[in-house]
Formats: sequence, structure tokens, C-alpha cells
Amino acid sequence: MPDCIFCKIVRGEIPSYKVYEDDKTYAFLDISPVNMGHVLVIPKKHATDIFEIEEAEWNSVTSTARTIAHALEKALAPEGINLVMNNRQKAGQAVFHAHVHVVPRSEGDRYKTWLGKGFSEAEGETIAEKIKAEL
Amino acid sequence: MPDCIFCKIVRGEIPSYKVYEDDKTYAFLDISPVNMGHVLVIPKKHATDIFEIEEAEWNSVTSTARTIAHALEKALAPEGINLVMNNRQKAGQAVFHAHVHVVPRSEGDRYKTWLGKGFSEAEGETIAEKIKAEL
Repeated sequence: MPDCIFCKIVRGEIPSYKVYEDDKTYAFLDISPVNMGHVLVIPKKHATDIFEIEEAEWNSVTSTARTIAHALEKALAPEGINLVMNNRQKAGQAVFHAHVHVVPRSEGDRYKTWLGKGFSEAEGETIAEKIKAEL
Repeated sequence: MPDCIFCKIVRGEIPSYKVYEDDKTYAFLDISPVNMGHVLVIPKKHATDIFEIEEAEWNSVTSTARTIAHALEKALAPEGINLVMNNRQKAGQAVFHAHVHVVPRSEGDRYKTWLGKGFSEAEGETIAEKIKAEL
């Protein structure tokens, strides 16, 4: 979809901290993470949400999300991990290209309110490399 | 696993509001839902979490979760749906048998803090039937 920000990320027209890519999926750091290492997994083929995504694309996205969780476990040894998918604005969806959040958790973080925090380019590159090293 | 509450639900030793079952997965109402129609999807084969579950079981669970979301959409026309998986206690996991929450959302609900609310047996049966009718 021409104007979709995540489609632009897949096409390389907008930069991202990519941690993984295969023929059907693309995974990159959320730019407003709950904690560092918060990754988004998306289908390369545009679909708005769980209601629109085709089964084959969905299976690929969730398979990649499991792979990412295993990589985060090895790379960051978080206290826990949440997988979250928000569908429609009322459920917290902000970009209307289906995506699964893979969120490493730490004591006292801000998960409940989903307040993101920023990070520097250097921090982004460092964490992306740590994750890629496990994939 | 003998003492796992979700394994007991799969075996029918503990009652549940079942909405779906196939050879690998089992789906039933969360007894402390964010909103009515909040469903849990679990693998029949015991696995603690995303770290332990095998790929084939995971693919079946997430495929069923998509199917449930589509059914909730038709059955309840929610304002949105969240899919959530909590892995380990620090991420909010309370039962240590892997499960994916499929959560229908409504304006002003208590999603953020994950405070559950109770429901009567009659309400449970009614909502389970509404969902099963779409599956």
C-alpha cells in the first residue's frame, strides 16, 4: 500500500532497526518501546489487522514472533516476554498494518500503560545487533 | 502434566466454557475476563510458555486464535480485539501452561490494568453459545 508507513519500511523507503527478515515477514525495533528490545513483527504483504490478514501470512508472522522471542531470551535474558497484537484504534492500534509486538519485560517497567520511551541511534544499533546475533 | 489446571480442563476434569477444540488446540472463556467473550487458546500438549512450546503446537495455537478473533468479530462486533500472550510471572502469566488471550474490547473497559470481572454461569453459557455458533 503506497502510503502505509510499515510498507515503506519493508521497501526500505523509511529506515528501521531491522532484526529479521524472510520471504513473508519483517521484524524491527518499535521506535517507542516499552523496554529496549521491543520488536514489531509484520507481514510484508499489507493487511490491516487480524481480521484482514490471510492465514498463510498470519502463520508466518506468528512463527517469526516465536523466533524473535527465543532470540530476545538469549540476547537480553528478560524477566518475561509479552506478545501483543492490537487490532483497531480502540484496542490501541496506531499503525494500520498488522503487527505483533514482542516485548521483553523488566521489573518496574511501564508496560501497563504502554508509555513508550525514546532511545538514541547508537542504543538502537547496539540492541539490534545483539538480537540479530541470535537469529 | 498431572497437576496443571489447563491440562485438567483439556481432559475434562475441570469444567470450562469451551468454545472450540481441534486435535491440537482447545479454546475456552477466561474466568476473569476483561470483557465478556475474552477467550483463552491453549495447546492440548503441555508447554509452559513461548520458550517451551514446539513450533507445530504454536502454529496451531495462533491459527486457532485467528479463527477465534474472526468468530468474536462476527458474534460480538467488538470495537477492537487484542491478542496477548504473557510469558513468565513478571509478564503477567498466572497459569503456567502456554495460552493466548483473545480479548474483545469496548469503550471504557479495564484492559490497561487487566482487572478481571466475574460473570454468572448463565452469562457464561450464553456467550459461549454465541461464539460457538460462529465456529
